[in-house]
Amino acid sequence: MTTPWWQQPVVPLDAGRLAQALAREAQLTKPAGSLGRLEQVAVTLASLQRRGAPSLERIWISVFAADHGIAVEGVSAFPQEVTGQMLANFAQGGAAISVLARHLGAPLELIDLGLAHEIAPLPGVRHLNIAAGTASFLHGAAMTAAQCDAALRVGQEAVQRAVEDGAELFIGGEMGIGNTSSACALSALLLDQPVSELVGLGTGLTALGLRHKSRIIERAVAHHRPHANDAFETLRRVGGLEVAALAGAYVAAAQNGLPVLVDGYISTAAALCAVRMNSDVRRWLLYSHRGAEPGHRFLLQELDAEPLLSLDLRLGEASGAALAVPLLQAACRLHNEMATFAEAAVSGSLV
Amino acid sequence: MTTPWWQQPVVPLDAGRLAQALAREAQLTKPAGSLGRLEQVAVTLASLQRRGAPSLERIWISVFAADHGIAVEGVSAFPQEVTGQMLANFAQGGAAISVLARHLGAPLELIDLGLAHEIAPLPGVRHLNIAAGTASFLHGAAMTAAQCDAALRVGQEAVQRAVEDGAELFIGGEMGIGNTSSACALSALLLDQPVSELVGLGTGLTALGLRHKSRIIERAVAHHRPHANDAFETLRRVGGLEVAALAGAYVAAAQNGLPVLVDGYISTAAALCAVRMNSDVRRWLLYSHRGAEPGHRFLLQELDAEPLLSLDLRLGEASGAALAVPLLQAACRLHNEMATFAEAAVSGSLV
Repeated sequence: MTTPWWQQPVVPLDAGRLAQALAREAQLTKPAGSLGRLEQVAVTLASLQRRGAPSLERIWISVFAADHGIAVEGVSAFPQEVTGQMLANFAQGGAAISVLARHLGAPLELIDLGLAHEIAPLPGVRHLNIAAGTASFLHGAAMTAAQCDAALRVGQEAVQRAVEDGAELFIGGEMGIGNTSSACALSALLLDQPVSELVGLGTGLTALGLRHKSRIIERAVAHHRPHANDAFETLRRVGGLEVAALAGAYVAAAQNGLPVLVDGYISTAAALCAVRMNSDVRRWLLYSHRGAEPGHRFLLQELDAEPLLSLDLRLGEASGAALAVPLLQAACRLHNEMATFAEAAVSGSLV
Repeated sequence: MTTPWWQQPVVPLDAGRLAQALAREAQLTKPAGSLGRLEQVAVTLASLQRRGAPSLERIWISVFAADHGIAVEGVSAFPQEVTGQMLANFAQGGAAISVLARHLGAPLELIDLGLAHEIAPLPGVRHLNIAAGTASFLHGAAMTAAQCDAALRVGQEAVQRAVEDGAELFIGGEMGIGNTSSACALSALLLDQPVSELVGLGTGLTALGLRHKSRIIERAVAHHRPHANDAFETLRRVGGLEVAALAGAYVAAAQNGLPVLVDGYISTAAALCAVRMNSDVRRWLLYSHRGAEPGHRFLLQELDAEPLLSLDLRLGEASGAALAVPLLQAACRLHNEMATFAEAAVSGSLV
């Protein structure tokens, strides 16, 4: 059996650029450490991008949409038709990520991996129809191995287009009614933690709805736990087409030397899948925000992630990542453009 | 005795615009509340700016610099000459706020209220020379009433220029070696809290330096506490020229209907002075970040402030506020540009 593509090596960090960036940070006209977490961001990006001057002026955003069989179990506050309706809204420029991408000057690529309800082709959307959404993972697997493999490749191909476009940062987003249930089941299996600690309101369940969602996911997790032996199998069993595409994109970005900014709960679940599929992917992932779902916190902890924002977002679509981009850009610009103590003839610290 | 200018009324909120903005938020194509704290920011700005479409495209930044007599007691890690040297660095475009203002396209106004060490006039800097820095507040008052009054007016005049420039947001910054000691003493007196809970490392003291700083401020606070009867008197006794300018600017901004984005610890201490001088100023103040100094947390709590960022910044200069601007701008753009459920033909929540 050949090694799957996702286990191929990722690009190593540049230790020389890392040391150079740390030395420069210490010479900039500010008290040491006074730019807080932005200093580490600039240094990390310099070592990832293998450059003296890290830069995030060219951002690429791919949003992956797909439906989830589990939605028929009544785990979401919205009907399943909304996945396709929102995809149309993305394409027409009316969704949150449309607005944010426009103001970042970032290309926004829209990919439909498979919807439960057929829609007419949308201009500017890649319709791939890998499946009519996943199967319900309540009693069976969400995807066949071939479907999961195809979805991972979709992410890999998106990264290829980003690289060809000259992107300096990859952002993946998702849309899929029911996908917080998938992220919750993935988290429960990958973290080996009870569903009750992870489950959340998604996009707006009532307390009653939350109890129902929790029971459904608990039953599914109990069914799949004995068989969830590795990350691919876990992803195939309780993941989603768009979650697999995100995981594939994260691995491929690391293999192509393209830093990733991870969005919210669903994206972070995909990030953990990617890291479990290839542990070296970890260092290529930056984290944008701490969202409102309880499970997000545990995933971030497992990934040693320190997201930049904490704004109680629960939207997905790559919106949290897009909101964090200006902070990353500022970190780079400060690192590159501030004067050193010597250049500005400013006295250093007395201690 | 006439009422001082800072007690003149501020511009009231527009309740109609507030209701209109709340109604619009509920119709945008996203689950209710899913943009988290950005939704409240947009709604608040609509009511402050009295507009259907809140906008923060034109930002004004005034940085106020001044020296502190308390610095001679050895409370800072940097020599006092750095205040003037950094002012020159601001003017030459090499400081953090220079870089951030440039990328925001924001005018950066530099105001020197009074330095301890004379410097040659700097191009583009307003040198006002109210005093050669404040007096040490260890045994006496930092400022005379006339000096404090003049410094408050400097802030008022900066806001006047911002208004004439068509600014949609006012940001004040500060530079002054020793000014975390001033902010700490102000916080101890205004919050009636022990110095030991508030004092912090400033821009990089050692543990030994911190103990010395704490003892100095404790002695000063004990000396002034019996006489610190109101906010003006407290500000005059242990504040700074740049702190008074910030407080004056915040009051004047509220009186001119110009929203304020407050920066870090020193600015938040000035904000509490402003709110104690005129309580209606409170609703005009937005908060950018939760900094690294312990005292900052208590000030924010007293002001019911929920800053957007928490990045362990400890720089001042208005840098934290400048970093938060893109989030506020995004909040406005999302509010104004997203499609409604009806416009996009997206189904609403089932519950």
